[in-house]
Amino acid sequence: MCNAPAYTIHAHHHHFGWDRSIAPVETVAPGERVAFKCRESSDGQITASSIAADLAANDPARVNPVTGPIFVDGAEPGDVLKVEIEAFTPSGFGWTANIPGFGLLADQFPDPELHLWHYDAVSLDPVAYGSHARVPLRPFAGTLGVAPAEAGRHSIIPPRRVGGNLDIRDLCSGTTLYLPIEVAGALFSVGDTHAAQGDGEVCGTAIESAIDVCLKFDLIKSTPLTFPRFTTPGPVTRHLDVDGYEVTTGVGPDMMEGARNAVSGMIDLLCAEQGLAAIDAYMLASVCGDLRVSEVVDAPNWVMSFYMPRTIFN
Amino acid sequence: MCNAPAYTIHAHHHHFGWDRSIAPVETVAPGERVAFKCRESSDGQITASSIAADLAANDPARVNPVTGPIFVDGAEPGDVLKVEIEAFTPSGFGWTANIPGFGLLADQFPDPELHLWHYDAVSLDPVAYGSHARVPLRPFAGTLGVAPAEAGRHSIIPPRRVGGNLDIRDLCSGTTLYLPIEVAGALFSVGDTHAAQGDGEVCGTAIESAIDVCLKFDLIKSTPLTFPRFTTPGPVTRHLDVDGYEVTTGVGPDMMEGARNAVSGMIDLLCAEQGLAAIDAYMLASVCGDLRVSEVVDAPNWVMSFYMPRTIFN
Repeated sequence: MCNAPAYTIHAHHHHFGWDRSIAPVETVAPGERVAFKCRESSDGQITASSIAADLAANDPARVNPVTGPIFVDGAEPGDVLKVEIEAFTPSGFGWTANIPGFGLLADQFPDPELHLWHYDAVSLDPVAYGSHARVPLRPFAGTLGVAPAEAGRHSIIPPRRVGGNLDIRDLCSGTTLYLPIEVAGALFSVGDTHAAQGDGEVCGTAIESAIDVCLKFDLIKSTPLTFPRFTTPGPVTRHLDVDGYEVTTGVGPDMMEGARNAVSGMIDLLCAEQGLAAIDAYMLASVCGDLRVSEVVDAPNWVMSFYMPRTIFN
Repeated sequence: MCNAPAYTIHAHHHHFGWDRSIAPVETVAPGERVAFKCRESSDGQITASSIAADLAANDPARVNPVTGPIFVDGAEPGDVLKVEIEAFTPSGFGWTANIPGFGLLADQFPDPELHLWHYDAVSLDPVAYGSHARVPLRPFAGTLGVAPAEAGRHSIIPPRRVGGNLDIRDLCSGTTLYLPIEVAGALFSVGDTHAAQGDGEVCGTAIESAIDVCLKFDLIKSTPLTFPRFTTPGPVTRHLDVDGYEVTTGVGPDMMEGARNAVSGMIDLLCAEQGLAAIDAYMLASVCGDLRVSEVVDAPNWVMSFYMPRTIFN
């Protein structure tokens, strides 16, 4: 919940691309707290009665609505927007999909798949994935960003130096995010809320879930910042690391190919050891497995590693 | 220490490349425990009296000696070598270097630099980096591998599908490593021991330190394994995550460039906030900062993130 916000931005104030010409919904002074009502990333096209076959009919123009923008009073190009991520109010319903053509292993998983999640929005207890696993939850916003300086409409899908669809799972409650500002007022929006995700978001979706977001804004004037950065108040993996990890690797001269090999290896391992179907292993990997770079200096081969928390099976 | 090993392989039994024609030092039965005495990665060329200017005189042919090989009785191509990593006996002395031409940001750091560490080999208390920081220690072996099937001598520097210079900082005490076997007897060797390293090993060196290693071997017959994998018995970051992280990102279509931008951003941040010299920030990042892939699906831009543990400054 959001403690006495100065403003509430409702979800009908959303947009589907970044564009400096979109009129702001509100003007917010530095230091003020704002509540954002956020839709999930299908804009309500996927519901509790959806099935995998429905995915093909979804309108791609409605993917990833973000709530906003807000104009931060006094923000100018060259300043940094400080965003204190204070709290999330989850809805209790979510979905994870394999969307044909999207995801790290899109070539290996050409068919649509959809998993629906019903989780306890208050306790946030780990949520069952069938009889296979229980996934720890930690809500965050996948997309937090400001408008790019370049005129025109820019796709919401790729993240940029001004943030956007960062999909960084540690942008959760307590974290402070810093974004480079390129236009007057910053023009900040937020959306693509997730109940859980692993580093990499390897199948292309997380536990996509409508979640309200409480943020506080401030400005750091005239400070150089090339890319987003953030500060976490404490550990970032303790919600799932207690029983250690199964880890697979990909070794070779291309980081992307190494990442693909590490994730493919994990899917093979989970199928063999846990009796999962490959598509289930892939989607589970996306919501709680972590992609890391073990070494990037022993030329010409790098080691990409995929960490799957064992607690989900215990 | 190593509890009643069946064999001790002394450090004069070392070699500098992988070659299936190197005669094994011992034949070890599955289930047996072996103690390996390991030199550090300069083969003794860097000592407690070395200075940065000495690096240029080092013989590159002597880099990264590994102790072994051992012949595992019954091992055949297509089997998997199970390596239980039981214990490490550290020496108390280590070094971290910026070696010109080597490392993720070699272009930005052309000059040699050398930091010497004297740590408590029994308590393994965090060790001071000047007055700037204290680095938590967790010994591991950077290089564990078996001989490739392909004849001839193969450089020790790049890791391969049969392992080798993996530089995975979680190959520490308690972890079990699985390696694909390509030749009869596996021909396993170990070395490049480190007292601490972050994911990525971004400056190219860790806390390089002579550390003895205690391993137990077993075979899994006729099992397909494409790349090394491992199992950790518990959490992997609790030695340094208590105070959270400062995190910088690199956003763009190339993972390597993203990694470089994330690490460059961290160096800038540490210089600004901690008053570090850039070279010190770079070497500190290498021994305790972690390179992660936040998202690799929001085409065409990926998010690489560099996590620096705040506890080192507290």
